[in-house]
Amino acid sequence: MTSGLPRRDLPVHEQRASVAVMVSRADIAAAAQRISPHVRHTPLLRVAGTELGVACPVTLKLELLQHAGSFKPRGAFNRLLSAASREAGDPVSGAPLTGVHASGALAAGVIAASGGNHGAAVAYAARTLGLAAEIFVPELTPAAKVARIASYGARVLQTGATYAEALAASRLRQAETGALEVHAYDHADVLAGQGTVAREFELDAPELTHVLVATGGGGLIGGMAAWYAGSVAVISVEPEGCPGLHHALRAGRPVAAPVGGAAADSLGARQVGGLMFPLAQSYVADAVLVTDDAILAAQRVLWENCRVIAEPGGACALAALLSGAFVPPPGARVGVLVCGGNTDPAKVTA
Amino acid sequence: MTSGLPRRDLPVHEQRASVAVMVSRADIAAAAQRISPHVRHTPLLRVAGTELGVACPVTLKLELLQHAGSFKPRGAFNRLLSAASREAGDPVSGAPLTGVHASGALAAGVIAASGGNHGAAVAYAARTLGLAAEIFVPELTPAAKVARIASYGARVLQTGATYAEALAASRLRQAETGALEVHAYDHADVLAGQGTVAREFELDAPELTHVLVATGGGGLIGGMAAWYAGSVAVISVEPEGCPGLHHALRAGRPVAAPVGGAAADSLGARQVGGLMFPLAQSYVADAVLVTDDAILAAQRVLWENCRVIAEPGGACALAALLSGAFVPPPGARVGVLVCGGNTDPAKVTA
Repeated sequence: MTSGLPRRDLPVHEQRASVAVMVSRADIAAAAQRISPHVRHTPLLRVAGTELGVACPVTLKLELLQHAGSFKPRGAFNRLLSAASREAGDPVSGAPLTGVHASGALAAGVIAASGGNHGAAVAYAARTLGLAAEIFVPELTPAAKVARIASYGARVLQTGATYAEALAASRLRQAETGALEVHAYDHADVLAGQGTVAREFELDAPELTHVLVATGGGGLIGGMAAWYAGSVAVISVEPEGCPGLHHALRAGRPVAAPVGGAAADSLGARQVGGLMFPLAQSYVADAVLVTDDAILAAQRVLWENCRVIAEPGGACALAALLSGAFVPPPGARVGVLVCGGNTDPAKVTA
Repeated sequence: MTSGLPRRDLPVHEQRASVAVMVSRADIAAAAQRISPHVRHTPLLRVAGTELGVACPVTLKLELLQHAGSFKPRGAFNRLLSAASREAGDPVSGAPLTGVHASGALAAGVIAASGGNHGAAVAYAARTLGLAAEIFVPELTPAAKVARIASYGARVLQTGATYAEALAASRLRQAETGALEVHAYDHADVLAGQGTVAREFELDAPELTHVLVATGGGGLIGGMAAWYAGSVAVISVEPEGCPGLHHALRAGRPVAAPVGGAAADSLGARQVGGLMFPLAQSYVADAVLVTDDAILAAQRVLWENCRVIAEPGGACALAALLSGAFVPPPGARVGVLVCGGNTDPAKVTA
């Protein structure tokens, strides 16, 4: 199913001029330099279309091999390192922090709300940088993700039905502690950090015409859209149960959307971020929806054909291609971001 | 534990002159060209030593992402395509076969014995090329591997306690049918095909000083040793339960060795191949052994740190590094081949 978005009749360079650019390619390049000691340059796997039953070659970026099992450490490290630089009065330093040097809000630790992956990433980054972390997750967060967050030494608090409720709880707590909030998506440093995925993808696969990305709160696709800035067709893929960007693009603004289905723990933000939305309006070429069955089928294809264990949100982008929700035009060279692998493999292989 | 092999006092170029070279770099380069339409160029994942608790950076080659879940299609395709070229009187053609063009032994199909991964690879290659396949596996082959072989349309016969017994049964059958035997390791075309792993590894990671490889019958390490030819220290890693190359290097010839333990289905060849042995004598720098506990620990590290599901044989090489069975010298830059992922993930994550 395609989104039926209105055609954009402006040429790309005029569209660019009309965007209030919150995150630039320069911001993303700076983020890449800042976080490079702490994140993995994740590899590609090029797969023939015939193997997947589609008409174009497919280049998978295996971002699930990132630290903490998803792309999220990119944004978390960029947020923390940028905050530390600002506290130190040094806007560009990427030198590792230690607890000894932390001051200001960082001395009070860091706090985040998350469906799971962002929390794991913040916990991982905080441990790396010698900071204390508190992570709020909702009840729908799988046990495997809670355990992963705790394994990095963070304090985990499971409360509320969805991410939005966990976020509200985390903000009450933040008012008490003064810890630095690391928002899961709606912060410019987080967007710039996630955008480094696109920078790597472009470096390693400059031939791509389309890139499929799963959307939750929109930090990932917002950052990636800011990098590509119309040079590649960035396609948003959401589960039918979590159609936040799909609905927002139709409404012309971020709106509350349902949160449910197999990928709700990673893609169930209820409403996309205000910072990403103008980027999506300008640079996201289409927003499609997939069923949970299509997601599960994509998870199985990744395991059977590639020995890759993706979580539901991690298989969501590929699901659009395999199910026909996104149909590449003739001659397309499609990139697919496999963005997370924090799941119990038994759920994939059963 | 290191092998305590005798020091080699000959300079490398004199050693090379003394080897009856069964497989040359030119053979491997030709194999790479021949099989390139049919195999994946598998990606690397670079991991900091601190993440793994070792003193050197580690470059994982994720060969488990290969078709059929292991490196084995490289040798299988090279064997089949080379045989087809010879039947056609064309020694270099790599053009795809079809059943229509198959003649001679290939018209009678292909036959192989295997602990599982080679059988899956031969079945996959045969299906790709339009040939019938019969695969003999021993009783110790896991159900997941039997199912994978059958999924590619091959006839699977499970017989005998170990690979060696399945091989004997396959040869009786081959005498009846006249099918082309695709040996799991002891054939020059198979060695050259497996050697293409090293060619890719060198192309993508030319900085490596050491490469750790799991050894079963020795087709993989033999081919890789032929490619590197002493330019990199190739380290053989075997489970204590399957010490075929370790024992052979001490005996000065291939000898029967025990077959047991967690990786017996992929590394339990009983005796290394005669063709690989001179290559190992000249170009394998050390042969170390690891415990099953070390293998299981390496499987868990690959999952927890990298979201990679490796089978026991696939984690064997990393186990040597993590357990200290192989200790890299100062300044080493170590490559590790993760050679297979055909296992039930629940066995890794439990």
